[in-house]
Formats: sequence, structure tokens, C-alpha cells
Amino acid sequence: MARKLYELCGTDPARRFSPYCWRSRMALAHKGLEAEVVPWRFTDAAALAFARYDKVPVLVDGDRVVTDSWAIATYLEEAYPEAPRLFQGPPESQRFIVAWSDAVLMPALARLIVSDIPPLLGPEAGYFIASREQRFGMPLAAVTAGREAKLPEFRALLHPLRMVLRGQDFLGGAVPDYGDCAVFGTLMWPRSVSPLPLLEPGDPVHAWRERMLDLHGGLARTAPSFGG
Amino acid sequence: MARKLYELCGTDPARRFSPYCWRSRMALAHKGLEAEVVPWRFTDAAALAFARYDKVPVLVDGDRVVTDSWAIATYLEEAYPEAPRLFQGPPESQRFIVAWSDAVLMPALARLIVSDIPPLLGPEAGYFIASREQRFGMPLAAVTAGREAKLPEFRALLHPLRMVLRGQDFLGGAVPDYGDCAVFGTLMWPRSVSPLPLLEPGDPVHAWRERMLDLHGGLARTAPSFGG
Repeated sequence: MARKLYELCGTDPARRFSPYCWRSRMALAHKGLEAEVVPWRFTDAAALAFARYDKVPVLVDGDRVVTDSWAIATYLEEAYPEAPRLFQGPPESQRFIVAWSDAVLMPALARLIVSDIPPLLGPEAGYFIASREQRFGMPLAAVTAGREAKLPEFRALLHPLRMVLRGQDFLGGAVPDYGDCAVFGTLMWPRSVSPLPLLEPGDPVHAWRERMLDLHGGLARTAPSFGG
Repeated sequence: MARKLYELCGTDPARRFSPYCWRSRMALAHKGLEAEVVPWRFTDAAALAFARYDKVPVLVDGDRVVTDSWAIATYLEEAYPEAPRLFQGPPESQRFIVAWSDAVLMPALARLIVSDIPPLLGPEAGYFIASREQRFGMPLAAVTAGREAKLPEFRALLHPLRMVLRGQDFLGGAVPDYGDCAVFGTLMWPRSVSPLPLLEPGDPVHAWRERMLDLHGGLARTAPSFGG
């Protein structure tokens, strides 16, 4: 297959847990596009040297190399205009929900689940632990200590999503769009690495996540998960 | 004029400070539509009885009566499809930024500026103070005490906006859309009632607000303001 997506994993190449890779994987599926998975691990700079980049996702589509999940989404929309639209208006008008996912959702999730990640990693665990402990200024176990008690605060952060999803099936409206891919992809990170029950049944955000898990033949639902 | 917008004010009918009325006023201007201002004050239920509603904005457009700022925006888009688009895709795909304005931005602003409002009100000040003190569980002066020290936390909440506005002129992209109207309209509330300097010069959010103030011949810039 000419199309490949480099995706983050640990020792198990089937358990792919990067929120950004999930955004791109869902975007590809939304467009009806297949892409071979190329498992990539933290610190494997050599494998991405061809892309002159040091992070995943990286999409290789024939001769094109596209780095960064946002650039991949806008590339797919331009390159495959006949496929279902990822963006229902100009992509720029969806920047806010992506920025909220990056600036609000990601850091809040990291504080809840970062300590679940090292056991899933191989030799790169040392790099991961050292870099994240430097970021947080404390051991990873201390970051997530007492995390069940922090769940109400986390769920409160989701309130804007909840307000929207009380009135419509997807963040995009009647159909999912890249806003759905961005937020849902972010939530695939904890689901892939942690048993922590982030969402309560009965929450409209939970019901929406169920709908997203079912899309594309259960692409995300069948991925290795700890159920969080 | 057949078109009228009922807008919240206090003793000065020119100082209109409702964030929701500002959303509708900006939406009307975006569509190039004039609408007579009908000043409305808290507790004046009789004036809105015709609309079977108890809040503003209320739009009267010929025979049509439309309540609620979101309903007004979608009504304007449907009723005036040839005028500049408020929504660049389906309106539903803009619900998230509006929900964030309501669920995150509004409460954070209230905690900073609610005590500035009673001096602007007439006899309805008693209602306002009692209802808001009940909501906050403390005197309004206590809600906003030491507010300058809370500004960094408030500005941090704006980070998703900042990330977007570093890369594009408007939340809608190259042109403003209803997402801009919703967030900017919300920020017209503090500007209209408070001298508190919410935004720092040099912040991309400040620069964007300047662009929004200039739209439509300076419609918002020339409105009565305390400069906050």
C-alpha cells in the first residue's frame, strides 16, 4: 500500500495511544482512506529522519510526506475533495475546538493518566519518565495520586462538550467532522492506556463517545483498550 | 423601522451591556441589517410579554418574533441568505465555541466584574443584587475582591483563543463569523461596565478584539465603555 501512517506505540504494536495519531487515523477513516500502520516508538529519531520531523503522526501518501495532525487533516481534505468532508466550512473555523483539545483537554488528561504509560513502553520508558517528570516537576506516581478524587473536576471541564451534545449527535452537528476527530482522538489516549473511568454512563459526552467508537466498523472500539 | 432588537441597559439607554444582546447586535451588523434599539431593563416583564419570554435579546423582524441569541443568529442566516454568511458551515458546527463562551468565559467574567453593574442600574438594582448574591452566596463586593490578582488566571483561560489568533485574523479564519460574534459579544459585557483591564496589549486576543471593535464602522468601539 502506498499510504502509510506512522503511529506511536509501546511494546505492543497494536496498542496505539497517541491522541494526535488517533486524530489522523479517524480523519483517514472519515475520508474512507486506508493507510498501513507503521509502529513508531519514542526516541526512534532515525525512523522519521526522512520526514525531517521528530514526532508522529507522519503520513506518507505516495510521494507526499505530511507531518502534524492538523496539516494531515487539511492535506487529506484538499487531496481527496470527493470523499466525505472533514471540514464543513473553512478548516480555520474549526481551529478553536482543536486548540481547546490541545490547551485544556490534553493537560487535564495528562494529570490523570501519565503514570499508566511507562509500563506499556520498552526501552524508551526511561526517556518518557525523565522528560515527563521534568515537565511536572515530580514523580509520575505523584502526579496522578488520588486521581479518582479529581474526576469531578475533570468532568466539569467537559461541560462545553456536554452542552453541545445534549442537542445534537456530533460536535459537527448531524454528522461528525474534524472537530469530532480532534476531541475523540484525544480521548482515545486515556482509553488506550488507562482503566480510569473518565466518563460516566448517562453523560451526553459518554453517549457521543459510544457513537464515535462505533464509526467505521468499530475502528476505535476494537482497538486495544483498558476501557477508561 | 420594522426591525427591532430589545437590548439590556440600565439608567443610560445608550450603555448596552448584555453579552447575549451584543452577540445579536454584531450578528445583525455582520448581515448588514439595521435594527432599532429598544432599551430593556431587568424585571420589566411586561415589555416582553408579547414574546412570551423574560430575557433579552428579543428580535422583532416584521411579523416574526425571535427570542434567544442563538435562535436569532440562525434565523438571520435563514431569512437573509444573500447577506454575508454568519455560518461558514452548518450552524451546529459552531455550537462548541458558543458553549465555551457560555460555560467558561461568562462565569469567569462574572467573578471579575459583577460588582460593577449595580451602580449602572436604576430601581432594578435591588433585583440584580439579590439574585446574584444568591447565586454566588456572598456579597458582590466579596465576589470581585482582589480581582486584579485573579487576572493571570482569567487570561490563562483564554489560551485556546490565543492559540487560534496567533495564526489567523479571526476565529472564523480570514473573515469573522458567528464564533467571533459570540466570543466578542461576551467580551463587550465587561468592556461596557468595568474599567478592569482584562486583556494585555501584545496578547493576540487583544489585537483580535481591536479588529472586532473596528468592524461595521466602529459599531462596538463607539459604544459607551469603561475601557475594560
